[in-house]
Amino acid sequence: MKVLVNGEIRDRSAVQVDLEDRGFQFGDGIYEVIRIYNGSFFTLTEHLARLERSARELKIKLPISVDLLAEKAMQLVEIEGIEEGILYIQVTRGAAPRVHHFPEQIEANLYAYAKVYPRPLNTIKEGVTAILVEDIRWLRCDIKSTNLLGNVLAKQAAKEAGAFEAIQHRGNLVTEGSSSNVLIVKNNKIFTHPANNLILNGITRQVLFTLAKEAGIPVIEESFSVEELLNADEVMMTSTTSEITPIIAVQGKKIGTGNPGPVTRQLQAAFEEKLNLNR
Amino acid sequence: MKVLVNGEIRDRSAVQVDLEDRGFQFGDGIYEVIRIYNGSFFTLTEHLARLERSARELKIKLPISVDLLAEKAMQLVEIEGIEEGILYIQVTRGAAPRVHHFPEQIEANLYAYAKVYPRPLNTIKEGVTAILVEDIRWLRCDIKSTNLLGNVLAKQAAKEAGAFEAIQHRGNLVTEGSSSNVLIVKNNKIFTHPANNLILNGITRQVLFTLAKEAGIPVIEESFSVEELLNADEVMMTSTTSEITPIIAVQGKKIGTGNPGPVTRQLQAAFEEKLNLNR
Repeated sequence: MKVLVNGEIRDRSAVQVDLEDRGFQFGDGIYEVIRIYNGSFFTLTEHLARLERSARELKIKLPISVDLLAEKAMQLVEIEGIEEGILYIQVTRGAAPRVHHFPEQIEANLYAYAKVYPRPLNTIKEGVTAILVEDIRWLRCDIKSTNLLGNVLAKQAAKEAGAFEAIQHRGNLVTEGSSSNVLIVKNNKIFTHPANNLILNGITRQVLFTLAKEAGIPVIEESFSVEELLNADEVMMTSTTSEITPIIAVQGKKIGTGNPGPVTRQLQAAFEEKLNLNR
Repeated sequence: MKVLVNGEIRDRSAVQVDLEDRGFQFGDGIYEVIRIYNGSFFTLTEHLARLERSARELKIKLPISVDLLAEKAMQLVEIEGIEEGILYIQVTRGAAPRVHHFPEQIEANLYAYAKVYPRPLNTIKEGVTAILVEDIRWLRCDIKSTNLLGNVLAKQAAKEAGAFEAIQHRGNLVTEGSSSNVLIVKNNKIFTHPANNLILNGITRQVLFTLAKEAGIPVIEESFSVEELLNADEVMMTSTTSEITPIIAVQGKKIGTGNPGPVTRQLQAAFEEKLNLNR
């Protein structure tokens, strides 16, 4: 495997992270995961814009321009010959002797690599189950940072319960999944938590908004309760890797009929159409 | 500099972290900072017990026993010839291809190094100033994890304001500093946030409790408000590196007379005494 380190493409075996990189000692870094379909990036611009936003919020200066990043990332995909996959990008504030505040003299580090990651066609078709967990994360979930321990513990709880995803709720209000956004359908309207500091504003979430708009399905960015989730007509999750995935049961309770619902299917079909148009 | 990597002491230059170490990609790790006075560790047992607790809470299996860790750490101090310094220990869940849940096959990594860090005698004597910031961190601050971005942003805000520390409050209740515990004195009683999920139970905080008990000063583990902080007779912070440091002004407002108070001075003297006894 090849890895982009700042502007340079290197062998994976020659890439290591410094012990005093703040990404390692403080989780002082940001990341993106970008989909590769048919050898090309999907919603690359949107992901790179979000990377720039995360960097701006944390006052991290990206070591290379997003244009150069896009160019080098495409080279990675070509070198590896990836058709269906993902690109992982991580940027840290850089390496310096350990102090909590931002060091004066520091240069950010960027790492990126692409790997094969097939579309999860089975779960997209059949749907998945989820559990409920308390959202214990910090109050800047809008920044796509590598402070991910809350997400890790939530996903681990799902795995231990035999579920695919953990749906987090802060108090009684549903925020998002451990690595996805969560949307419900009630009376042919879609509801999802507003894009504030409590959730990550997913790119696939935004793609779904466009698709829903084109289909005349109202999307209401309002938080909903655990009860509303459990009594929804349909529940779905969105993420770069899982696309639009139906959630057919939550905490052991069937959602609607226990099968992927018509609104979810309609949006999935529109998503497929969008992918085909991109080819 | 030498670094302990799992059981082996290596040259700093030969130590690197794997790109897919979960400590780097998720902040999936824990740490400790232990004081070295006069070439010996201070409260080593307590710090190692807390490391074990953090590991247990996150289901990380330490790669070596704490006894071997203590032995190797002492070797680091001797090799480096450190009289006054700190030992930094970080343990991560290990390296594996990136998935949120705990990978099935994974071995934790431990890194430790010692460095010179003189006692901050000036701030201990003169006191420091602090600002107030909202506590935006996650709800498991009792785990000494490397998800430290909230702490980093708080300390950076203090630095930008020309203050030494940021005192965090969740709603109106004071939790702790960005890298310290915070205690107030009111009518010769000490108040500090209880050691629950919202703060790290500092070792120096616990040392202070013992010293206060020996001196007949009541310590009440009850949270206090921002107003109670600002109107306290004395405010102090504790941490491994700053020991017991007076906070003489908060958010531009003098605490008491604006000088270190008598209870703080008494506890500092008792702390000095404890250090001398340890020699």
